[in-house]
Amino acid sequence: MNPCEDDITAWFGQHSHVSSADFPIGIGDDMAEVRLETGSVLITTDMLLDGSHFDLREATLAQAGYKAMAASLSDCAAMATIPVAAVVAVALPPGFGTEQLKELHAGIALAADKYDCPLIGGDITSWRAEHPFAVTVTMLSKRGANAPVRRNGAKAGDAICVTGSLGGSLRRKHLEFEPRVTEALALAQMVELHAMMDISDGLSTDLNRICVQSGVGALLDATSIPVSEDARLAEDPLRAALHDGEDFELLFTLAPDACVRLLDTWYGPVPIARIGSITEAKGMRMRLPDGTVAELVPGGFDHLGN
Amino acid sequence: MNPCEDDITAWFGQHSHVSSADFPIGIGDDMAEVRLETGSVLITTDMLLDGSHFDLREATLAQAGYKAMAASLSDCAAMATIPVAAVVAVALPPGFGTEQLKELHAGIALAADKYDCPLIGGDITSWRAEHPFAVTVTMLSKRGANAPVRRNGAKAGDAICVTGSLGGSLRRKHLEFEPRVTEALALAQMVELHAMMDISDGLSTDLNRICVQSGVGALLDATSIPVSEDARLAEDPLRAALHDGEDFELLFTLAPDACVRLLDTWYGPVPIARIGSITEAKGMRMRLPDGTVAELVPGGFDHLGN
Repeated sequence: MNPCEDDITAWFGQHSHVSSADFPIGIGDDMAEVRLETGSVLITTDMLLDGSHFDLREATLAQAGYKAMAASLSDCAAMATIPVAAVVAVALPPGFGTEQLKELHAGIALAADKYDCPLIGGDITSWRAEHPFAVTVTMLSKRGANAPVRRNGAKAGDAICVTGSLGGSLRRKHLEFEPRVTEALALAQMVELHAMMDISDGLSTDLNRICVQSGVGALLDATSIPVSEDARLAEDPLRAALHDGEDFELLFTLAPDACVRLLDTWYGPVPIARIGSITEAKGMRMRLPDGTVAELVPGGFDHLGN
Repeated sequence: MNPCEDDITAWFGQHSHVSSADFPIGIGDDMAEVRLETGSVLITTDMLLDGSHFDLREATLAQAGYKAMAASLSDCAAMATIPVAAVVAVALPPGFGTEQLKELHAGIALAADKYDCPLIGGDITSWRAEHPFAVTVTMLSKRGANAPVRRNGAKAGDAICVTGSLGGSLRRKHLEFEPRVTEALALAQMVELHAMMDISDGLSTDLNRICVQSGVGALLDATSIPVSEDARLAEDPLRAALHDGEDFELLFTLAPDACVRLLDTWYGPVPIARIGSITEAKGMRMRLPDGTVAELVPGGFDHLGN
């Protein structure tokens, strides 16, 4: 893993002059929170690039639009917050015009309607030369019944859980995934979540972020990790489940007794699996099927420099 | 002028399922407004591209970062609202790393500190091939003492005014302009503004937007248009003042008696000029120095397709 992205994010956080009273959550989480006179609003922004996050030789613009919205909705879910509205900025290659924008809009509207998060503004600009399509979605959300769930609250002894199954997303799922908005809000209602994020850069990379930000470590159980159908097609399915990006599943920690209660009462089509425990010892380790314990290092895709 | 951008923006507005109770201002203005349980927040997003909005062969990354922030601050000014916070998403060319991001941050921080609008979050991604730097700034603002000033409130008989001087911005000013945040809030305190926006695509293009959205026309007085020093270097200075983009000055309309009062009492380094009147007859016309009246058509740069 190239540590640049997390390092520069931390540096940005240190060099932004924000008061924690006005901005209860700043740089370094899935969303930032802005305190208003009364109440607050949360915000997330993500730029998706043709050739990196989708490939318009294979994907449609509607799929690109859907994915861009769904990735931001997944950030809302990562904090257990309620999506409110989105704005979209696009950079168009030469030759892209009204028809292409309408196709993009169809995908955006699909996600917007499904998750009641309307498109309320945007910006259209064009490359002057032959460069790829790029789209930035910025989304606002609001608190549900609970406080936003952050990355930095994991405690030694916590159970580590994920929704759904992991790995192989680039084969298919990453263009049509369902952000876990409903599941996140249900989870936050049912139990006290200590830390949560969505898995966008791979389980090993994103779990490491929770560990670093919480000042703890993790011990995973290899046999408990839910390996997706698509990951099973990979040469090493477990490796795919651990390190592939773009799962957009929820990764969260909670007290072990709360976890038992949750797994007892959880229902619905999206499964939850307990995959390990938070440890006081820093770093990540994994118990292998033969009973031995190996060091686990962040191996997910790092968007900076990779 | 290529009408595509305004047309597709209108189409997007028609096809977004938003309630005016939850979103008092939607697609098609300088910012959208989101009603929260109590109060509201406004949002604007803009993507700036190397080669279109700045040229990194001549401009520094700090200048690009400053301009990206200042353009969004100018949107806050356009509504006479108070900037609150910004998030920034960047797409990096191969080879861009920590040093480049720190240089970018210096420009962002310059604007953020000056206008008390901190950077609170962002996203860093990288092109996989040789493509230009792109940056999207999304900014939140809040209402001042007055309601946000929209584009659609111009009335027949209104005076049309601008701040500063126009044209030739690409020679220099567009990388280091001061967004008219303070001036906009002062204006909204002093008089009742009927319509306002910032001039980003050129006076003729942007005045036409106010006219179309307000269902009115305009008659300008060519001799009253404040031609900038840089526009005077152009072959046709008046044409530059009318059609050049990136002025980032305020364009607003108000009742004629309010305009007299305003010009009487306005102070400070940024001048205000009355450049014409809103007419009931649609379309734009201009009284030339010889006393004849010519049709004025939007001739500013249109980012879509240009």
